[in-house]
Amino acid sequence: MTVTYTLVGLPSGRRGQVARGTALRPALRGLGIGIESICAENATCGKCKILVEEGSFAEYGVVSKRAHLSAPQPEETEYFERRRDLLSRRGWDLGRVRLACQAKLLGDVVVTVPEESRADRQIVRKSATVRNIEIRPSLRKYLVELMPPTLENPRADWSRLACGIATSMALVRSGETGLPGPRDLTIDHACLRRLPDVLRQSNWRVTVSIWQDRQVVRVEPGLTEQLLGAAVDIGTTTLALYLCDLTTGETLAVETDMNPQIAFGEDVMSRIQFCSSRPDGLHQLHKSIIKTLNQLLLRAVASAGTSADDVLELVVVGNTTMQHLFLNLPPMHLGAAPFAPVTSGAVDIKARDLGLATNDAANVHMLPAIASFIGADTTGVLLAEEPHLQDENWLIIDIGTNAELVLGNRHRLICASTPTGPALEGAHIEHGMRAAAGAIEHIRIRDDTMEPEWKLIGEDDWGAGRPKGLCGSGVIDAVAELLRVGVVDRSGRFAQDVAAEGRIRNGADGLEYVFVHAGESSTRSYISLTQKDVRQIQLAKGALFVAAQSLLDRFGIESPDKILLAGAFGSYINKANAMAIGMLPQFDLERVFVVGNAAGDGARIALLNWDKRREAVPLSGRLTRHELPADPEFQDRFIRSLAFPAR
Amino acid sequence: MTVTYTLVGLPSGRRGQVARGTALRPALRGLGIGIESICAENATCGKCKILVEEGSFAEYGVVSKRAHLSAPQPEETEYFERRRDLLSRRGWDLGRVRLACQAKLLGDVVVTVPEESRADRQIVRKSATVRNIEIRPSLRKYLVELMPPTLENPRADWSRLACGIATSMALVRSGETGLPGPRDLTIDHACLRRLPDVLRQSNWRVTVSIWQDRQVVRVEPGLTEQLLGAAVDIGTTTLALYLCDLTTGETLAVETDMNPQIAFGEDVMSRIQFCSSRPDGLHQLHKSIIKTLNQLLLRAVASAGTSADDVLELVVVGNTTMQHLFLNLPPMHLGAAPFAPVTSGAVDIKARDLGLATNDAANVHMLPAIASFIGADTTGVLLAEEPHLQDENWLIIDIGTNAELVLGNRHRLICASTPTGPALEGAHIEHGMRAAAGAIEHIRIRDDTMEPEWKLIGEDDWGAGRPKGLCGSGVIDAVAELLRVGVVDRSGRFAQDVAAEGRIRNGADGLEYVFVHAGESSTRSYISLTQKDVRQIQLAKGALFVAAQSLLDRFGIESPDKILLAGAFGSYINKANAMAIGMLPQFDLERVFVVGNAAGDGARIALLNWDKRREAVPLSGRLTRHELPADPEFQDRFIRSLAFPAR
Repeated sequence: MTVTYTLVGLPSGRRGQVARGTALRPALRGLGIGIESICAENATCGKCKILVEEGSFAEYGVVSKRAHLSAPQPEETEYFERRRDLLSRRGWDLGRVRLACQAKLLGDVVVTVPEESRADRQIVRKSATVRNIEIRPSLRKYLVELMPPTLENPRADWSRLACGIATSMALVRSGETGLPGPRDLTIDHACLRRLPDVLRQSNWRVTVSIWQDRQVVRVEPGLTEQLLGAAVDIGTTTLALYLCDLTTGETLAVETDMNPQIAFGEDVMSRIQFCSSRPDGLHQLHKSIIKTLNQLLLRAVASAGTSADDVLELVVVGNTTMQHLFLNLPPMHLGAAPFAPVTSGAVDIKARDLGLATNDAANVHMLPAIASFIGADTTGVLLAEEPHLQDENWLIIDIGTNAELVLGNRHRLICASTPTGPALEGAHIEHGMRAAAGAIEHIRIRDDTMEPEWKLIGEDDWGAGRPKGLCGSGVIDAVAELLRVGVVDRSGRFAQDVAAEGRIRNGADGLEYVFVHAGESSTRSYISLTQKDVRQIQLAKGALFVAAQSLLDRFGIESPDKILLAGAFGSYINKANAMAIGMLPQFDLERVFVVGNAAGDGARIALLNWDKRREAVPLSGRLTRHELPADPEFQDRFIRSLAFPAR
Repeated sequence: MTVTYTLVGLPSGRRGQVARGTALRPALRGLGIGIESICAENATCGKCKILVEEGSFAEYGVVSKRAHLSAPQPEETEYFERRRDLLSRRGWDLGRVRLACQAKLLGDVVVTVPEESRADRQIVRKSATVRNIEIRPSLRKYLVELMPPTLENPRADWSRLACGIATSMALVRSGETGLPGPRDLTIDHACLRRLPDVLRQSNWRVTVSIWQDRQVVRVEPGLTEQLLGAAVDIGTTTLALYLCDLTTGETLAVETDMNPQIAFGEDVMSRIQFCSSRPDGLHQLHKSIIKTLNQLLLRAVASAGTSADDVLELVVVGNTTMQHLFLNLPPMHLGAAPFAPVTSGAVDIKARDLGLATNDAANVHMLPAIASFIGADTTGVLLAEEPHLQDENWLIIDIGTNAELVLGNRHRLICASTPTGPALEGAHIEHGMRAAAGAIEHIRIRDDTMEPEWKLIGEDDWGAGRPKGLCGSGVIDAVAELLRVGVVDRSGRFAQDVAAEGRIRNGADGLEYVFVHAGESSTRSYISLTQKDVRQIQLAKGALFVAAQSLLDRFGIESPDKILLAGAFGSYINKANAMAIGMLPQFDLERVFVVGNAAGDGARIALLNWDKRREAVPLSGRLTRHELPADPEFQDRFIRSLAFPAR
């Protein structure tokens, strides 16, 4: 008869009866508590640390003692001896912390599984709702130790490694079905070329990185733990790259820049025309985006103290035109009716085929697009915000050079796209700039003195630092404040009769309001908002407003339950001011949520969780595209929406 | 109740009852007679022509009439009207020939399915045995006609095409299970880039080429039928490329050349050392082989009147070192014990990743290797000769710069490899050359006059043309004849006392026998066989002899049932002479078969029949490697085998 003991895993408190002599790692997995490992239970990787709780746990009917586990063998003792530093940092006693792959059950015991050891780690994302994102990347690492070849067994390096991996995978992930055998594994050719040297230099002990449980993409000497990827959001005007640790979910570095394709045309149509009008047009646009993304990547890895060779996967989102240009696909047919893209499904392609500076064998995943003008960036928004799981009706507005709007709930979702121009991203504004250090991100005008106050990106205090220009959120604040204090009237005109001494002047483009005098700026030039700037904002917010209204009409409701404002502003916009200038229909401010770069967040989620990529495919097919009307009545509504709302 | 009629398909004579109104193509498939189609039964591709037989077929109890089939519709009539030329070339009456996808059964009928219409076409290979090779390439073509995109249905070009392909595949191959749906199909990125233009230029009617039922690799406007691939045999000394029509199995062009890597080392060990000793060694060797293969390919497509862009697949064989150098994999560890290759399994890789001049999206398939020094070329020999299906014991000797030997039967197979040097391929011989136009391929010496006679490659008659040099088979004849007439004695020495006026002279390397005087050759230099050449041949044939003997000993038999002599000689060697100089153990000549380039034939078979590639994987694992002994006794046997046999 098998002797069994009670095992309790904290913090979840799951418990069960386990046969005497079972190691804790498989025993805990039996209770539904997954524990990390990459070393095939060899007491080498230390991923499976647990803490033994001592005492009487009456609620479980258990008296727990360290002695109820098998004594540490020399490998385990040695492992912890060499890591005294780490234990003292964590405040863990030597002896209380054990490796779950080594410690065997000899009596009732209660253990705590610390977050860092859990296989089902999560990161928390807070937006309109709080939710957990499970870390389940498409890459995993395994430590593999091989017998070197001999004259009796001179089998090929790759067959030898493939067998070792299959064994290590089976041990690390025992109980999981559908794991590949050595015959199903493949190895990237670039990785294969380096294999013989790495195996011999490391004395046949290597860490392999496996993509999607099927292809070896990297082999490193000895035990290595770092596993990196990047999420990329390609906007028409701005680019953002997030360098992420794929095991912790942590974002190690964020780099942003202007899209260099602006030099070839400011909106998607002008870039499509550039491709149509020149034989090397596509080549130029493709090369320019790849070059800048490589710069962002190199900056990010430098600031994280790692190398581009460590980056093994990229997840990319963008609008359909940006998707085509990034993938080097001709976008010409997006430029004329019926606006058919070349491809709209999810794409996996080797980074080297696009000239990216990541590891040679890295994969690039592009999320699927939704419709001709609703790209993978909107799919990213859906993954980040999950309107398709809500009972309420949500209206999500993703603001960029084009704005995409999604409206609906778990039963029905519709979407639309409208060009707004780059003004809301700080571009095409006289003293605009992208959201970067030195940009004015927030502005207010004092009622008493009519003097402006500003806050810069990268500074904690109002008024600190020397401004460079206005980013998108600063522009919105500027317009809202000028409207509030009466410098700009509801029609968008600068009022001449306002007492704002030395602030209103006649510039090259008519009247302008000076927020920063030349002496205060870092550029030695004054910073103002001009009449022309106000007109740009009016056009942009008018387009947003009528698009949202048209979507609500089509859906058959007067108002959504929540509004989510997304966009790669860099800084969060002031939702009250966005409402004040009429970017949104009149709405309870409490139910407006500013959610930052949701498209980029969606790319990060798809990078950290492979399942989400698979969910994205049917999800992207669930939306109904709503074509904004082109009739005179709609145009009339647009013109009427240009005026600012009454206060 | 369903009315049925008798349908008989000739030449097989298969027959059955078929429901009235069934089209002949599905009806014949029901009888087990597969009929070609690429147009999804649209009366467009004309692949499914059949001939209606008229008259009384008493043996089948059938009276067959043209009128027992539905009358041709305008599409079918038009198809044949435009092809009157073809019909008259074939001797077929208009009216008697019908499209099986169109003609429907309205009464009993007997039809003949001509070879060209059959889906299970075969080519016949004659070697030690005669056998049929079924044509079943890994690529297939489908004609796809699409509805152009509209504002209501602007779906992406690739999704549109994928759906069209799935429909066409299902129609063309109805009844087959496991066909992919549109979601399982992928498209090569290089092919995708050209897709939008091809679709629109062709008015949405294209022929797609699909690799392994899963990836679209080419999209051509309109209906095209040609489907090309190439088989490549990379020898240490010689290269051979066979350009093949993948639908008929026909070899359209054969191109051969010297392996340019000879400049870096004459045997595999010296090339491995070249890679070890220079940082760019592998790069140089890889580039040189790719460059020359591209030249062979371009010559082959030019002579076949087609273009390299039409070549959609390559199947490559070679010894393990050649495999590494071709795939750009470091071969260094093949150069020292325990001689582990980097990889030995079958490899599929995009031709563009190796710099090959085929279509961008073409696949390169490398057959699996067997052991450290027994490469994919031997796997090719197995596919071509099939010793593993024989009850008899076969000894196959594949002669090259290294010789590989395989011995066994359906139950047990063993193999060995031995270096022989390039002499048997005409290299390393004073006046040697590869088998090409102008090479002496056969030689005899007249007993009466002691004067030589020769026959050139590319000439039908003995003595015709001007010789350039001796190829491998010529060298073997030369040695055998010199031995026979006594110019060379059993120890390999030139006899001084032979009456061969003006033929024996003292050259730079000692005595030599002049076969062609300077005035007769095309090079204006005489052509001889030197004492040094004879020594090369002795070393080569001695190595072959002891390897064969050692293999027979290990297998435990005195003699095989058949001997197959394979090798890329270009021309077939004279087996009596090969025996006379002791290349083989003494054996009944009737049971020796000279089978030409079996490795290259195996590559062609794997190119034409996808199943054979899959069979090759377990097959390559069935052989036991026999390590030739390195002991003094074996060396003694080798030295004793250097003498020529007594007559």
